[in-house]
Amino acid sequence: MLSRRTFLSTAAAFAFTGPVGARSRLQKSPTIDAARLRRRLEHLSTFGRPEGGTFGSGVSRVAYSDADRAARAWLLDEMRGTGLTPRVDPVGNIFATWPSSAVSSDASRQLPILFGSHIDSVPTGGNFDGDLGTLASLEAIQAVQAAKIATRRPLEIVLWAHEESTAFGRGTAASRIVAGDLQAGDLDQMWNGLRRGDAIRRIGGDPARAEEAVRRPGTWHAYLELHIEQGGTLEERKVAIGIVEGIVSIHRYDGQITGVANHAGTTPMAERQDALIAASQLTLAVREAVTARPGRQVGTVGRLEVTPNSPNVIPGQVMLSVELRDLSEEVLRSLAEDIRARAALIARDTRTEIALSLASRNPPALAHAPVQQAIARATDRAGLTAMRLPSGAGHDAQMIAALCPMGMIFVPSIGGISHSPRELTTWEDCARGAAVLLDAVLDIDSRDTI
Amino acid sequence: MLSRRTFLSTAAAFAFTGPVGARSRLQKSPTIDAARLRRRLEHLSTFGRPEGGTFGSGVSRVAYSDADRAARAWLLDEMRGTGLTPRVDPVGNIFATWPSSAVSSDASRQLPILFGSHIDSVPTGGNFDGDLGTLASLEAIQAVQAAKIATRRPLEIVLWAHEESTAFGRGTAASRIVAGDLQAGDLDQMWNGLRRGDAIRRIGGDPARAEEAVRRPGTWHAYLELHIEQGGTLEERKVAIGIVEGIVSIHRYDGQITGVANHAGTTPMAERQDALIAASQLTLAVREAVTARPGRQVGTVGRLEVTPNSPNVIPGQVMLSVELRDLSEEVLRSLAEDIRARAALIARDTRTEIALSLASRNPPALAHAPVQQAIARATDRAGLTAMRLPSGAGHDAQMIAALCPMGMIFVPSIGGISHSPRELTTWEDCARGAAVLLDAVLDIDSRDTI
Repeated sequence: MLSRRTFLSTAAAFAFTGPVGARSRLQKSPTIDAARLRRRLEHLSTFGRPEGGTFGSGVSRVAYSDADRAARAWLLDEMRGTGLTPRVDPVGNIFATWPSSAVSSDASRQLPILFGSHIDSVPTGGNFDGDLGTLASLEAIQAVQAAKIATRRPLEIVLWAHEESTAFGRGTAASRIVAGDLQAGDLDQMWNGLRRGDAIRRIGGDPARAEEAVRRPGTWHAYLELHIEQGGTLEERKVAIGIVEGIVSIHRYDGQITGVANHAGTTPMAERQDALIAASQLTLAVREAVTARPGRQVGTVGRLEVTPNSPNVIPGQVMLSVELRDLSEEVLRSLAEDIRARAALIARDTRTEIALSLASRNPPALAHAPVQQAIARATDRAGLTAMRLPSGAGHDAQMIAALCPMGMIFVPSIGGISHSPRELTTWEDCARGAAVLLDAVLDIDSRDTI
Repeated sequence: MLSRRTFLSTAAAFAFTGPVGARSRLQKSPTIDAARLRRRLEHLSTFGRPEGGTFGSGVSRVAYSDADRAARAWLLDEMRGTGLTPRVDPVGNIFATWPSSAVSSDASRQLPILFGSHIDSVPTGGNFDGDLGTLASLEAIQAVQAAKIATRRPLEIVLWAHEESTAFGRGTAASRIVAGDLQAGDLDQMWNGLRRGDAIRRIGGDPARAEEAVRRPGTWHAYLELHIEQGGTLEERKVAIGIVEGIVSIHRYDGQITGVANHAGTTPMAERQDALIAASQLTLAVREAVTARPGRQVGTVGRLEVTPNSPNVIPGQVMLSVELRDLSEEVLRSLAEDIRARAALIARDTRTEIALSLASRNPPALAHAPVQQAIARATDRAGLTAMRLPSGAGHDAQMIAALCPMGMIFVPSIGGISHSPRELTTWEDCARGAAVLLDAVLDIDSRDTI
């Protein structure tokens, strides 16, 4: 039985040193098998692959689909093949635990360290979003098994069901239920003629026992998730690893701009009250407000509808969405204030009315500082460059942050492209991410407290 | 039999003098019966009036509808009641001629002076668009009848069928066929399950003989049309009569803006290629280009469609319409050049592609200068203020300008509102417009040549 002091090397043979306090007693190093990780990513990509496609052709593996079911069945087999005993929770999440084997007297009382991701995709999605974090987690467990590392705490991997908001719309991820958000009627939601409860049954869940899927704070010691960045920051800055500071808060506003629809031929320019002129100014004002201050906040007008939307009629009304994202809700509130002030000036100048109402608000999920530090140490030991950055996209980690300390590891997305068959991360970066995940898990395990 | 020298007074008792050269021999003055004109406008408004509505409630009298048919039947009766013998041409236009009764030896060789308008409406339209010009024309004939005026030329009134572009889409007015624009398949157009040929039969036309509705240049001596302005210029400037310089040319462009659709959360502001940002700048640039030069040209972005149009996706593509109107096509070409230059800068700055392609082009229809002068003299004699202005809206006069000298008279639209139940012109302005129409017709008749 090896010491619980643990070590890292990747298949790409990066420089490494053991975790803090363990440098003097190197023994067998747990190692990510980069070739096996790649083979599994390639195999997983066949489930939901378009007819006649290859690995780069992307995937349509929407939650609860036949492709999703087949991929899950294959992954259950892969887990069992490593000696794990996977179990499906009542809402379809798959968990598998590698028990602690430390001689420590308190081992049985230690909470597991959880890590994983998802394998469902958006329609015509890519081959890395979710897949990488899921298969890297299995790889990390296998590395521990192969190195015969004794951990203080059980290691638990998870495949979250239904992460993408395609099926049954937004805010319905199975991890949300695990975090306690199960509301009356949730299981009766309909999508494409399918009841959500029946969909859950299709992937081996038991909707009648859905409440048992809810977990309490105190279930896990920490949660880690490796994921592709889905943005272009790491690639652009030539940084190998992103240490996620948190998952941004999203404040979404509905804008309604009311002008006067009128004849596009008979109404002189000076007499117009053109709702689209106001909407155009507002769209640019959102961008100006967002970029006027330092920081990584983003703001988007993604939806815009004109009424009556006819070439020969001056637009009388425009509805649009204003979505603001940042880790700090204070920043979002201040931005909204700025945008409201600009909107008031625009309304006055264009003689229109502009109403902005808060349509939805997702709070941020901050990554726990000690988990970020563990990831930073793992990155340092691997000799990799790293930077802190927020996640602009939502992840299961966002939900699980309500239950335990959470951290995420990002690897570069080439061109920042995601939710597209063109989604791409190099095999080397996949292996690097898996190695950092493994070492960060062992780093956290090596400490008494987080 | 009175002299062909003719005179004007309105029921509102405006000051007047006879037409040029006839001031010394005042006899019985032809007079618009303002009260009868009002009664007829009120009665006409009942055909297509919304349930429980009153005169101000507007009208839905779409071409070929039951309301249109009933209103036409009533108007045919009114014409017959004045001693006219109306006839329906093969495409549904109604003509009625009051024969010349001058002793002039060349009377039989004189071409008729035509004047009229339409009574079909847009859905939920107003009570003056078309109705005023149609009923004022009948009123003008009755004034001539009552005053026993001998005209040199026959006076012919017309009710154009299907002026509004609601039924069967744009560019299908019956006056267009009269002007020679009858194309294969036109009568087979479908709208709301109705074939256009069958629709024409519903209003008394004979689609099998549609080609006989086509008239040649040389059919009429001149064409005049009284219409509400449908814009706010006359009211704003407190001018009673608009002397139309012509009906504007319309150049319509389709704009296609191609950016890169991307995740609204993970794509930093600086890396975006947001098609809606470019479209907003272009929409404002159209307005800037149009207002940067003196003149009455107008430009409108009336239609705009975003793809994928989702709050959480940066817009990847925008399609929009750019419609430019002016009497001068040279101005429109120059404007388009200006807009293209601005679009190129916007495309560069936003890293998008902007394509602008000419989608349709209607040439202008200039009002004949001598007809404008006749209207100006009539306005002077009535002691009314007048101004020249273009018509930004299309009218049947636009088509008939291809067959004979054309002129139009505008009266103020309160608030510039049209194609709306809120369309409103005062009774006094209705009577003034009818009186100017009458006097201008007689002025043109009084001259050997136009």
